[in-house]
Amino acid sequence: MSRDEALRLDLADPLASLREQFSLPDSMIYLDGNSLGALPIDSAERVRAAMVDEWGTDLISSWNTAGWMQLPGRVGDKVASLIGASPGSVAVADSTSVNLFKVLTAAVGLGARAGSGDVILSERENFPTDLYIAESVASMHGLRLELVDGANVSARLADADAPLVAIVMLTQVNYRTGAMHDMIAVTAATHAAGAISVWDLAHSAGAVEVDLDGSSADFAVGCGYKYLNGGPGAPAFAWVAPRHIDVVHQPLSGWIGHAAPFDFATEYRPAEGITKFLCGTPAVLSLAALDAGLDTVLAAKPFGGMAALRAKSIALTALFLTEVEPICAEHGLRTVTPLDPAQRGSQVSLSSDTGGYPIMQALIARGVVGDFRAPDILRFGFTPLYTRFVDVVDACQHLGEVLASGEWRDERFSRRAAVT
Amino acid sequence: MSRDEALRLDLADPLASLREQFSLPDSMIYLDGNSLGALPIDSAERVRAAMVDEWGTDLISSWNTAGWMQLPGRVGDKVASLIGASPGSVAVADSTSVNLFKVLTAAVGLGARAGSGDVILSERENFPTDLYIAESVASMHGLRLELVDGANVSARLADADAPLVAIVMLTQVNYRTGAMHDMIAVTAATHAAGAISVWDLAHSAGAVEVDLDGSSADFAVGCGYKYLNGGPGAPAFAWVAPRHIDVVHQPLSGWIGHAAPFDFATEYRPAEGITKFLCGTPAVLSLAALDAGLDTVLAAKPFGGMAALRAKSIALTALFLTEVEPICAEHGLRTVTPLDPAQRGSQVSLSSDTGGYPIMQALIARGVVGDFRAPDILRFGFTPLYTRFVDVVDACQHLGEVLASGEWRDERFSRRAAVT
Repeated sequence: MSRDEALRLDLADPLASLREQFSLPDSMIYLDGNSLGALPIDSAERVRAAMVDEWGTDLISSWNTAGWMQLPGRVGDKVASLIGASPGSVAVADSTSVNLFKVLTAAVGLGARAGSGDVILSERENFPTDLYIAESVASMHGLRLELVDGANVSARLADADAPLVAIVMLTQVNYRTGAMHDMIAVTAATHAAGAISVWDLAHSAGAVEVDLDGSSADFAVGCGYKYLNGGPGAPAFAWVAPRHIDVVHQPLSGWIGHAAPFDFATEYRPAEGITKFLCGTPAVLSLAALDAGLDTVLAAKPFGGMAALRAKSIALTALFLTEVEPICAEHGLRTVTPLDPAQRGSQVSLSSDTGGYPIMQALIARGVVGDFRAPDILRFGFTPLYTRFVDVVDACQHLGEVLASGEWRDERFSRRAAVT
Repeated sequence: MSRDEALRLDLADPLASLREQFSLPDSMIYLDGNSLGALPIDSAERVRAAMVDEWGTDLISSWNTAGWMQLPGRVGDKVASLIGASPGSVAVADSTSVNLFKVLTAAVGLGARAGSGDVILSERENFPTDLYIAESVASMHGLRLELVDGANVSARLADADAPLVAIVMLTQVNYRTGAMHDMIAVTAATHAAGAISVWDLAHSAGAVEVDLDGSSADFAVGCGYKYLNGGPGAPAFAWVAPRHIDVVHQPLSGWIGHAAPFDFATEYRPAEGITKFLCGTPAVLSLAALDAGLDTVLAAKPFGGMAALRAKSIALTALFLTEVEPICAEHGLRTVTPLDPAQRGSQVSLSSDTGGYPIMQALIARGVVGDFRAPDILRFGFTPLYTRFVDVVDACQHLGEVLASGEWRDERFSRRAAVT
């Protein structure tokens, strides 16, 4: 596609104006919103107001007057509206890893009640923190973590000769490949095997259409700083299917999850509903930033909401796949993201046997910002809120030039940064 | 003391200028820094810079260029310098409750190694979240939580006929009464009983002199939003005695605590040192605010640091105790905070059989902000960084007037807010 054609697509794009919500450097083509979403223009003012107008003016009274104590639920309801969950079913707090610990332990308790197996099943290429937390939960409860290839999850569940599975823990969209599980089908297979489903929506929320209620999933967690634009290290979220919430227990039983925190009772009595998945004092400043980030996604509602964002995301990744194909063929890269749009999230990943890391560094030096995932993945994320079709064409142009010129072989591009 | 005498004390106070670091409403006497520290003037700019100059400008690269990944340790070192801990021994992350879960579980592992008892001993009046988390850890590991009065902890430890204690978990300064444990003596008694000490420094860090290394304590946690002025829901901290760090394990084994997070390895391998007590992605915006808050405390260094702050804190609480005594005697209130300054933290608490809550609400309506702790405690915190001697005299004057006039009996003061 020519640059002019791409510009025409942007002109015709009904979602194009949503980009104006963000502060993006002019010189940068930012294709890493799947790692850290861009800064919403409103965010800095929203956080300033929380600091100066609330904290600085009313101090401790702001817990009441500014509704700080309600933030985890109020922000949670915004998340819920993006992932097919009911109001009151999502709590925003802590990190994705901490929330995964909560819901996995809750799932273990639910499984024990149901008398299920002793295997936590996951995908070998799941994001490592999920595997680390599952390893910890498994070891604390005498379970075993079993890892299979993502494509084999349903087959493993259907294998009547294999050990019984208690919990299936998957990230819906794979962080490396961008491959997306069919949540409805895998959840059905999970339930058919008598197991409980735990979904990580880190690369789903705000990027693809998710229907937690409709898929009959059991538990979910997700990240606030990727497609939800909540800022670096934003609070994460936890969801529990309303049909389970009354009977499950989570182990991080802090005072904010208590039924009456300000009674200061000696014994823990969990709050009703998802509130019992809260633990410590709400992180008000971070919640204010995430609230502003969520509003950038909710702003798509008049234009068709998540369905429209997903359609644009597919168009962006499809264009990138088309444009990058001849470049890959010429320079020995491979596309590892599924070509079927129903099977991919909002990113495209290429693998390179030789120079994954320095190629990405050379691209970044040109202002095209993706990232590298060891050992060999060049990762490009396409946040439909702010990525333009012309960005896709330009990024591919740069990639072709980086590879054709060999500039990526410059030794400065091989020096590893601490964070990739 | 007359108001003029108090003003003269403020004029002579070498720490008086530290108050200029804060944005405090003119009309308010803020005696609740033990619940939520005041807003440092630098904080809003520091967070704005993290948002606009770092996140908004360099986006994902800021993890390297702005040193975001090092924030938990760098901010941790500032905390360490205030609590008698070595550089590299404090991690800032998550909430106090979550960190308590980590260190208690680590302590359980250490106790199991030492073959100790099955009791977690704590104080009946400990802050509830500590008890709730201990209850959870105890139930997960087949231990039992035993609660005694704070004054009886050492006697219980010395009781040869009582069940063996594995862990002694105490908050150094009691949130209700302000009573302070002797950390050196209680830790020695803990060790003499073959148990492990876990200290919560929520009401200590930034308020009293703490010497973790010198007391030979084993584990500690603490809060960022009280005397450290980190803002509502600021990240908390965790400390592990360097002599234990290599052998302990914590269960919230997220990727940021991994030895090499960006290798994306399938199996968890803990980082060296206190870094393994990290879990999820650092909360950069909250860490920036806490960093600014810590700098307000570190600014006392040229004036004598924590020793000088503690001396002023004792002078403030002593003055309040003296001024409030005749008011209590006249109106049936009782001082529940120890009169011996060595046994109290930086707060004074009064109990009221009749009207604790409405009396505090009437005071707040006059601009004197303390708080109420169920069932009967009026709590006044004296942050030495920004509380003046004249504030103490004025607060007592208002308290006397509120009680003498009976204005607290107005029914609007009895309506309970959600957060007290």
